[in-house]
Amino acid sequence: MKIALSQLNYHIGNFTENIGKIRQAIAGAKNEGADLVVFAELAVCGYPPRDFLEFGDFIDRCHNAVSDIAVDCRGIAAVLGCPVPNADGSGKDLFNAALFLADGKVKFRYFKALLPNYDVFDEYRYFEPGRHFDLVEYKGRRIALTVCEDLWNIGGDPMYILNPMDELMKRSPDFIINIAASPFHYDQAGIRRKVLTDNVRKYKIPLFYVNHVGAQTELLFDGGSMVVGPDAQIRDELRFFDEDLKIFDLEEVLQNAGPAYEPEPHHKISLIHDALVMGIRNYFRKLGFSKAILGLSGGIDSAVTMVLAVRALGSENVWAILLPSTFSSDHSLKDAEDLAKNLGCRYNTIPISGSFDAIRHSLAPLFIDLPFDITEENLQARIRGVILMALSNKFGHILLNTSNKSEAAVGYGTLYGDMNGGLSVLGDVYKTQVHELARFMNLEEEVIPLNTILKPPSAELRPDQKDSDSLPEYEVLDPILYHYIELRKGPRDLVEMGYDLNLVRRVLWMVNNSEYKRHQTPPILRVSPKAFGMGRRMPIAARYLAI
Amino acid sequence: MKIALSQLNYHIGNFTENIGKIRQAIAGAKNEGADLVVFAELAVCGYPPRDFLEFGDFIDRCHNAVSDIAVDCRGIAAVLGCPVPNADGSGKDLFNAALFLADGKVKFRYFKALLPNYDVFDEYRYFEPGRHFDLVEYKGRRIALTVCEDLWNIGGDPMYILNPMDELMKRSPDFIINIAASPFHYDQAGIRRKVLTDNVRKYKIPLFYVNHVGAQTELLFDGGSMVVGPDAQIRDELRFFDEDLKIFDLEEVLQNAGPAYEPEPHHKISLIHDALVMGIRNYFRKLGFSKAILGLSGGIDSAVTMVLAVRALGSENVWAILLPSTFSSDHSLKDAEDLAKNLGCRYNTIPISGSFDAIRHSLAPLFIDLPFDITEENLQARIRGVILMALSNKFGHILLNTSNKSEAAVGYGTLYGDMNGGLSVLGDVYKTQVHELARFMNLEEEVIPLNTILKPPSAELRPDQKDSDSLPEYEVLDPILYHYIELRKGPRDLVEMGYDLNLVRRVLWMVNNSEYKRHQTPPILRVSPKAFGMGRRMPIAARYLAI
Repeated sequence: MKIALSQLNYHIGNFTENIGKIRQAIAGAKNEGADLVVFAELAVCGYPPRDFLEFGDFIDRCHNAVSDIAVDCRGIAAVLGCPVPNADGSGKDLFNAALFLADGKVKFRYFKALLPNYDVFDEYRYFEPGRHFDLVEYKGRRIALTVCEDLWNIGGDPMYILNPMDELMKRSPDFIINIAASPFHYDQAGIRRKVLTDNVRKYKIPLFYVNHVGAQTELLFDGGSMVVGPDAQIRDELRFFDEDLKIFDLEEVLQNAGPAYEPEPHHKISLIHDALVMGIRNYFRKLGFSKAILGLSGGIDSAVTMVLAVRALGSENVWAILLPSTFSSDHSLKDAEDLAKNLGCRYNTIPISGSFDAIRHSLAPLFIDLPFDITEENLQARIRGVILMALSNKFGHILLNTSNKSEAAVGYGTLYGDMNGGLSVLGDVYKTQVHELARFMNLEEEVIPLNTILKPPSAELRPDQKDSDSLPEYEVLDPILYHYIELRKGPRDLVEMGYDLNLVRRVLWMVNNSEYKRHQTPPILRVSPKAFGMGRRMPIAARYLAI
Repeated sequence: MKIALSQLNYHIGNFTENIGKIRQAIAGAKNEGADLVVFAELAVCGYPPRDFLEFGDFIDRCHNAVSDIAVDCRGIAAVLGCPVPNADGSGKDLFNAALFLADGKVKFRYFKALLPNYDVFDEYRYFEPGRHFDLVEYKGRRIALTVCEDLWNIGGDPMYILNPMDELMKRSPDFIINIAASPFHYDQAGIRRKVLTDNVRKYKIPLFYVNHVGAQTELLFDGGSMVVGPDAQIRDELRFFDEDLKIFDLEEVLQNAGPAYEPEPHHKISLIHDALVMGIRNYFRKLGFSKAILGLSGGIDSAVTMVLAVRALGSENVWAILLPSTFSSDHSLKDAEDLAKNLGCRYNTIPISGSFDAIRHSLAPLFIDLPFDITEENLQARIRGVILMALSNKFGHILLNTSNKSEAAVGYGTLYGDMNGGLSVLGDVYKTQVHELARFMNLEEEVIPLNTILKPPSAELRPDQKDSDSLPEYEVLDPILYHYIELRKGPRDLVEMGYDLNLVRRVLWMVNNSEYKRHQTPPILRVSPKAFGMGRRMPIAARYLAI
């Protein structure tokens, strides 16, 4: 039996496009002699469809899509994911199903039993867990169909009280198919390989695995679909960050035949780079936009954001605006201009001092003699935000936000100012990682002016300001943030780890007291195991963990 | 046996305050001769604690809080909610427990079996469902402890496949205790009464029910704790929108003795009014603020917001800013001034035309001769936002957002402009309901100038602008929005209901294409069964339901 794995970039709710891609892949696989073609979890509607699943109209369209696709499944079978109504009379309204299509119709349905409901996942919001464990037979082979999380309850500290594969093994399957929607973070490819090979090590039958690829707003899917032989060795992987289709001979896989496969080593920064480029590109395409605008300060965050945008959208589609104030240094303007020139992008300069003076003048009767403080710093950031949004509105560009994760964490940013944007590119990348990205981008030639990378970070909102006036050095700050945010270490844990009590107090105070700002932040491309946004849900009017 | 119901307003994560309130209530109940005092679900930490539950430090503090409280439980017993670690070796890390404290320690633990995971609820994100159903015995009585949702799987279309009370009834309890965290919406009190009395009708034993009261950012809890006699009649309710403690004699309740109780009829607009006042008041108090600022336009939304703010915070704590542009009508300024005077609040006027001219001047080299369009309309709204935020920053007031639900739904608002604010007061109140609120506020005297209520809605961002230039009349728009948002009717359903195809197409296009704006909106006080925010989760870069 020849099995094709089809790794596609779906568009949530765009049934016409998704059905078209699936039908094209079925035709292509059939042409190349495949007997079976496997698509990803919830392929017909895209993942995650979120509260669309609560609309009867949406579920009807999923059903109709499967009917359309089934017509093509003659002389070839297909496995694909689709939400289906729960007809049991109790429980949630839907199942998250893997459908087996053959002879022009749905021949078998498996319902996902383990529903991830943590971090960015909300599946128990919509789905009832499946409780029946049967195999599908095809061309004399017995197949264990499973959906993503069904294989992930392996290893210590199990999150679920049952293992679907333990049940399915009682029926003696010949191999496993797992259709998945497993989002990227910088460590995920390694974790995924381990989880999948651990399953084969335990159950001793081969595994065919198909993941999503492409970005769905903040969630990035890296692909990396794979085949694991019965020896628990990966036989092959599909591409990362791109669509792909590959065909495998089941007999060869069962015999561990064929050339050896060695996964390419992945470097964290290179993965983050590729994921962010894909994230920008897909966000724009899926919203029907092609052009980006951003404020270029001469600092490293906007520089790295701009390089990523150019790689995602092309230099002709990225427009940089320089917004100097009286506190901007000369080198900032020059560094910004040099970058725009290096990239071959249009750039314009709009000084903000006239606007700053006018607004201060209107506030003067109320401010009277109160000293210049953070209000005036924020005011400059907000004027820049207003000007960028005016250009975005007038010319139809999406404004890219350039804040990094360290700033977002401690609230070192102005709401309705530099926190503006349709998409936050670096909001899940700590400042020290932004530096690594900049150096990575400059490996072959100096794209980002060296001065941008070397100078001390500054918001340039008052004379001689440095980030380190308000914040610990990023080399000190970022590890604390990582332990608090990614690893959920509390203040007592941090002090036990050896961090200074007052430093912990100060950093956690800053993080906790800027929850209200992060509530209004643009969607953030997720590259870490714990990003701000849908995967981290904190109350606002609360008293936070503190010592 | 005398049973006290203690209905308290907890502060999430503020263990000192929560423990203090609980101990004070125990002492008070004991003084009045109570044998048992009942507190709400997750009382020790407040509800919803959200991802705090992922911090070991937070769970330790919950445990320590219970140890502190248990010391007081001598000569009196207490029931209260607390997260407790799952020691079973598989499943989620925590249970959502009802603890029975007596003789200075935890004598019994019941684990919530039905975990709500829809709308604003995420309990399966944190908790493993309980699977053991035992009673606790106290003073010769057998008590069925349950937690909130455990009683809600009653009626047609059950969401869960088991009923905890069916299991508990096998052990012959004498009465039921249900500790809850059941948030308010305008129909919830009636639904709650029906669900609770339906349980007693089915199981034929009395029920003691304790709910939270107070606001937790967007979630409002109205209290309304109650006792239901074995005849399925409500014997008494605790106060709405306020803390309360009442003591009941179990023997009297068992015998359906005591005076008859008739719940006060609730009027929807009056409930919304009281809920919003509580929501503002609690948001400020729990964040440690006392003063609000808002932009007052002379229109109905800012007027109603201001009256609510004054009732929540006092007239001395609400500051109105009038921000006229060249497009503002004379009556707008006068209406705004009249309102501020009626309320006895400070108000100031800051014209925006100088700032508008300065920013347009700086944009002129790029805009050249392009016509005045929505860019310039947004620019005015954003200048107002910048000025209000400058005052908020300088003087430490929280900016109140004044957008209504109709505007939020169709995206008729400017991101980083009139969408600014720390809290959205009316973001779950449709425009037609804002009118009802205004008339309700004016019942006894004309607080809101009649002209504000009667004039056609206008954003006044270009000459002679009316909302109805861009939107259907609100009397037409609001019912379509209600069916799409609250009832999840799809476009085909709406057309089948008789709405014009082109109108449905236009309205749904507007709602769907402003998802990106709502992503960056302030927290919205929830008064309906489906509010924008944590209870409605839609993808952004998606293709939406359309015909």
